[in-house]
Amino acid sequence: MARTQVAIIGAGPSGLLLSQLLDLAGIDNVVLERRTRQYVESRIRAGVLEQGTADLLTRAGVDARMKREGIVHDHIGLAFGEREERIDLTAHTGASVIIYGQTEIQHDLFEARAARGGTIVFEAEDVTPLDFDTAAPRVTYRKDGLTHTLDCDVIAGCDGYHGVCRASVPESALKTYELVYPFGWLGVLADPPPVSPHAVTYVSNDRGFALCSMRSMSRSRYYIQCALEDDVAQWSDAAFWDELRRRLPSSLAEPLVTGASIEKSIAPLRSFVAEPMRFGALFLAGDSAHIVPPTGAKGLNLAAADVRVLADALAQFYGEKDSAGLAAYSDRCLRRVWRAERFSWQLTMLTHKFSDDDFNRRMQVAELDYLTSSEAGAKSVAENYTGVALEAAEG
Amino acid sequence: MARTQVAIIGAGPSGLLLSQLLDLAGIDNVVLERRTRQYVESRIRAGVLEQGTADLLTRAGVDARMKREGIVHDHIGLAFGEREERIDLTAHTGASVIIYGQTEIQHDLFEARAARGGTIVFEAEDVTPLDFDTAAPRVTYRKDGLTHTLDCDVIAGCDGYHGVCRASVPESALKTYELVYPFGWLGVLADPPPVSPHAVTYVSNDRGFALCSMRSMSRSRYYIQCALEDDVAQWSDAAFWDELRRRLPSSLAEPLVTGASIEKSIAPLRSFVAEPMRFGALFLAGDSAHIVPPTGAKGLNLAAADVRVLADALAQFYGEKDSAGLAAYSDRCLRRVWRAERFSWQLTMLTHKFSDDDFNRRMQVAELDYLTSSEAGAKSVAENYTGVALEAAEG
Repeated sequence: MARTQVAIIGAGPSGLLLSQLLDLAGIDNVVLERRTRQYVESRIRAGVLEQGTADLLTRAGVDARMKREGIVHDHIGLAFGEREERIDLTAHTGASVIIYGQTEIQHDLFEARAARGGTIVFEAEDVTPLDFDTAAPRVTYRKDGLTHTLDCDVIAGCDGYHGVCRASVPESALKTYELVYPFGWLGVLADPPPVSPHAVTYVSNDRGFALCSMRSMSRSRYYIQCALEDDVAQWSDAAFWDELRRRLPSSLAEPLVTGASIEKSIAPLRSFVAEPMRFGALFLAGDSAHIVPPTGAKGLNLAAADVRVLADALAQFYGEKDSAGLAAYSDRCLRRVWRAERFSWQLTMLTHKFSDDDFNRRMQVAELDYLTSSEAGAKSVAENYTGVALEAAEG
Repeated sequence: MARTQVAIIGAGPSGLLLSQLLDLAGIDNVVLERRTRQYVESRIRAGVLEQGTADLLTRAGVDARMKREGIVHDHIGLAFGEREERIDLTAHTGASVIIYGQTEIQHDLFEARAARGGTIVFEAEDVTPLDFDTAAPRVTYRKDGLTHTLDCDVIAGCDGYHGVCRASVPESALKTYELVYPFGWLGVLADPPPVSPHAVTYVSNDRGFALCSMRSMSRSRYYIQCALEDDVAQWSDAAFWDELRRRLPSSLAEPLVTGASIEKSIAPLRSFVAEPMRFGALFLAGDSAHIVPPTGAKGLNLAAADVRVLADALAQFYGEKDSAGLAAYSDRCLRRVWRAERFSWQLTMLTHKFSDDDFNRRMQVAELDYLTSSEAGAKSVAENYTGVALEAAEG
């Protein structure tokens, strides 16, 4: 029977980052992951890092490649109709964001954990957190046909929205909030250079939302709002580029360079929060506790913030025998979470097509006009997008 | 057959203010009103004036009593749950608002028009704007059993949402936008002193919206969100005060002094815009062209802004034989209108109960928390509430 201080369930960015930070603080931990490293590493996700997230990667010692290859953006674009406006992040907040794909972070974290000899159990089946409401929590799992038990002090649930950790909490102990949006995002990854290489550009059009994003100066990431029931097979590359172009102002449609898609997929949009984020010795972090629609680029950043708070609380617990940080974990994270949920929801409501209602569309356009022409309006977007206003909520 | 330069339809605040401003500019005008003076004067409406509106009353020479009796507010209150927060208007914008009832303005305007010998035809029946797409517009009406014709250069449609002016425009020439909200406001006027005499306080509660407003230091105006199908007769004074108190934070519920209602009524909430606001010689102003829900206190202020733009354009037209101002009237007004529509809609969405959905409620609370704790958030409310951001839109 094995024992560790912190059993981490899930080897996504939250789990690995927590593992690395705890290791650096001298806290013993084991990561249990249901999939293979290859599977986890091939997932394509977010790519916009708040400064606070980048700082945490620095603290974790996994920033070398991000600093080399990451692209700093000091503004975002907001396009609607024929207007292409910008929100200056740095002028309003002193902060910027960094374009660096989650796939890259995942790789860097795997390398870093391997370099420090961290324990990650891949293909751990039937992972089950147990007795986390007692003084002797443990996690059981199956591997190579055998059942294993990992005794621990603390279980970190970094296993995402569909994971076992939140599902292990009695329903009566959880209050959940959820909104499923009536559309999806059809995303394409392709290797023509991005049409707006200096900013992620959010596009709100009468035909629906679009997003011009990027992974590098030579790799583009575009999205268009699509029907939830659409099948990715019905969207040829040509159809995708055609629809994207129709939603862009001429200033972006004309220079757009298209190419064969490397990856194409449809993702649903969801807002979700489970409260609280702690149950005895079980601490939920990242997507296992909350989901935001990708519009505000907050998902990975929220997960990193949870991990930071949890790593600090555990360092205080083991280093100073003080459990105050652990006691405050859920409330502290949730203040930030609700602010990010609000911003992500609002940016989604502002930019997507919800109906054919003309009044609602005019409200969207009036709001976009206000946000891009009022100093206070622009600042409110900038301080949320960079995370500055979320940081403030943590208190 | 009579003739005037400007035929003004409607003797509400828009019509009378326009009449007064034109008169002061030496422009001949006649006001046609379907009701009696007493009827018009007894209507109880808005009571929050932007600085720009107050300035316009000064320019019209009808500010003496407002300056004596009006109450300057340098902030508004925002209450949610047990929190009672404030948005400092003056610190953020340099501007404030003035509490002075529309009923009082209406009275002052009638007095001013009488003092200058203005012509107001009361109880004018079947008022009909005609031939406004020709060089010889006219208005016909019946009075004391006789049909009258008033020839004019310009017709000003100041006759409200249900008036004849907008209804006289061919449907194909109008584009309308509308949202009817799924609730009403139950309002009570009463003579205990207001519970928050230094600010209008907007209250967003799990049970629904409430508003603590005032007409003077001894006269309160309170509202609660109610069901659209409610009958005012089913709301006793006791039931009203009881429900109001349940929606207030203790800091307001405890000092609340109740009393017999002087007036009690239920009003629906509507957002409405008709574009354009000009058809040949017919110019719509105020409620005849646009309606906002009362949440942002923008209705009377928008009407005053229309009147200012129209009075200036007519002075330019008659004084300098230049019709540029008249040509620009609709676009200029509509830029401000859409900004005010947006703010009024947003403040309504933010503070009212639309459903039992918990996620939506948490989004409201998170937004209220953000707006009252972020400098940029508070400023965005302040610059819209005082009208500073609306002024900016006029260009």
